[in-house]
Amino acid sequence: MKTTHIGLLGLGTVGKGVAEALSHQHSVVIEKILVRCTDRYHADLPLTTDVRDILENPEIDIVVEVMGGIEPAHTYLVAALEQGKSVVTANKEVIARFGPELMTLARQTHTTLLFEASVGGGLPILDALTWHLRTMPIHAIEGVVNGTTNFILHQMEQGMNFSEALKRAQNLGFAEQDPSADIDGWDSARKLAILSGLAFHTWIHPDQGQVTGISHVRSSHLQRLTRMGFGMRLVGRVERHPTSLGFVVAPTVYPLGHRYLTLTGSQNAVGIVSDAGTTWIEGPGAGGLATATSIVSDIQRIRFMIPDREPIRFENRRLDHIDDAYLVFAEDPNQILPIIPETLKSGPGFLILPFPLPPEEGLVQYRYRAK
Amino acid sequence: MKTTHIGLLGLGTVGKGVAEALSHQHSVVIEKILVRCTDRYHADLPLTTDVRDILENPEIDIVVEVMGGIEPAHTYLVAALEQGKSVVTANKEVIARFGPELMTLARQTHTTLLFEASVGGGLPILDALTWHLRTMPIHAIEGVVNGTTNFILHQMEQGMNFSEALKRAQNLGFAEQDPSADIDGWDSARKLAILSGLAFHTWIHPDQGQVTGISHVRSSHLQRLTRMGFGMRLVGRVERHPTSLGFVVAPTVYPLGHRYLTLTGSQNAVGIVSDAGTTWIEGPGAGGLATATSIVSDIQRIRFMIPDREPIRFENRRLDHIDDAYLVFAEDPNQILPIIPETLKSGPGFLILPFPLPPEEGLVQYRYRAK
Repeated sequence: MKTTHIGLLGLGTVGKGVAEALSHQHSVVIEKILVRCTDRYHADLPLTTDVRDILENPEIDIVVEVMGGIEPAHTYLVAALEQGKSVVTANKEVIARFGPELMTLARQTHTTLLFEASVGGGLPILDALTWHLRTMPIHAIEGVVNGTTNFILHQMEQGMNFSEALKRAQNLGFAEQDPSADIDGWDSARKLAILSGLAFHTWIHPDQGQVTGISHVRSSHLQRLTRMGFGMRLVGRVERHPTSLGFVVAPTVYPLGHRYLTLTGSQNAVGIVSDAGTTWIEGPGAGGLATATSIVSDIQRIRFMIPDREPIRFENRRLDHIDDAYLVFAEDPNQILPIIPETLKSGPGFLILPFPLPPEEGLVQYRYRAK
Repeated sequence: MKTTHIGLLGLGTVGKGVAEALSHQHSVVIEKILVRCTDRYHADLPLTTDVRDILENPEIDIVVEVMGGIEPAHTYLVAALEQGKSVVTANKEVIARFGPELMTLARQTHTTLLFEASVGGGLPILDALTWHLRTMPIHAIEGVVNGTTNFILHQMEQGMNFSEALKRAQNLGFAEQDPSADIDGWDSARKLAILSGLAFHTWIHPDQGQVTGISHVRSSHLQRLTRMGFGMRLVGRVERHPTSLGFVVAPTVYPLGHRYLTLTGSQNAVGIVSDAGTTWIEGPGAGGLATATSIVSDIQRIRFMIPDREPIRFENRRLDHIDDAYLVFAEDPNQILPIIPETLKSGPGFLILPFPLPPEEGLVQYRYRAK
């Protein structure tokens, strides 16, 4: 089989994982690696600080982008596709914002754009979605797709306050120095927007939905929930209605023992709901080696020219409105005790805490999803 | 796109699900359906009682087999492949026993043999395995892959005795009239043997491993376990050792809250373990419509000539021995109380109950997996 030449944009945690994973593959070589500064790396790596060594290099077949951030990543990906190179990217910001344009460009230039690593790191979520789409329509997708908030909520359940938990996450490398994308829910919203584009062929912008982060959650809320037999995770859900989509990202409350509450650190879980039932994919949602598995799988998909991404396309299908799908309110916090356990036991119901919370007791108002 | 003509062998629960699911697909038509007796069905279905109307029909591209059982299914599949027809089957008995021979025959006749539905009904487990194999080696696979035993164990936890629970499962259609394949663990062992063939390229016969069913489990055992904070499911596991495989199917004990214990009825869960962590696939493991999704996905895979099954092959790789991977014994049942909770909290450990149990108290001897 012909050797495939890779141009790698970025050599952070994921980039190093990709280099490591590709070293075990036959007939795939990394031709060039773009870094900001060559001093920090082994001298025997094929480093460059000039992106043209990759974008204008006729040897390179596939550009793998693991830089993150909108720019210059977006410009580089456009240039790569225009140069006739296929692209594999882990960049959820770029795909959530420019997915349809980039897919159109790839079709025009007869190249391939794949992005399994942009949602759920090491999990074959887009693969499973494609699999489902081949056979039956999807009604809804939901999941926990952000590891930073798992970590912070778990620490706060143990009594740490929010800013301490955030600082700890930053010190351990779980959270960015600017953590707003994670804790305000935008990271989850971008991933849900990508899933929505694939599952429903409908492109939505994250800010069209109801997106609430965890920065208003207090340790005292979580401890009170624990005593009541519940726990909280940041959950996103997109569901298809007759002429609209429901789209929500919010800190959500589940009875102890629920699968989401066992997720710690970078563990993700995504459920795909169809007439056949709900299929759950659960496992490592981040980390260099895990994310690299998705990237290498995409590279192999391009190499073997596997045409099963046909159902994966973005369309700007007309969307009448975005629903807030959550219906029932219980104004009195004492009402919650008789209501929840019965309902949660038997149905797909879950609770959403509205934020910002009232200043004192906090858990005054609940919204309960009735369906 | 060219219309694909299907010959369907069998029209039971799964066969009806396939017919229903295919009615929504473009360019796929069911040309003929083999049944034992045409009286029981709608007159407008293209029924036949003569298999030659399918096997010798030049119009038919793909033979879909949902009859179950070794014969005559195996003979029909061999004939179909020899006639140059591709085959999609849900038949775990045939694949577990004749997988390598059929794969070889398919290669020789330039046809395709796919069998996603043979393990985990409606779940894309073989798809996820293939995905993983493209990027990194798999260390182990484990899971709950039999719904009948879920149902019976769940009933027995509520106090029903084994034969009552079995009768109830039979009355509700969850269990066969001859339930031995399910309750003695052979159904699970066959599915694990198929997963082992794909993940480790090593063909093992189910009876090479330690296979223990649930027929010796007593309701009193389960109720005692519940009081101790544990529950039981029939679990299978295959793991790779340097020169051997560990292969076990056994009723296995987990702390309450473990994912396996939430599985009821036909729900299955399979974990794929690699350096990147463990990926879990969980959802409907049986049922007409669910199983049909796997079959339709395989049909579409063949239609689009998606060549990503390359890593899926069986080899009779030499196997020095099959390990029983379970190591530590605790002779005194009272020892278990201090030992388990600590160990189970922190590691991948789990317990296996040895059967047949001593006649009286039952839970006298435990084996604990130390690794």
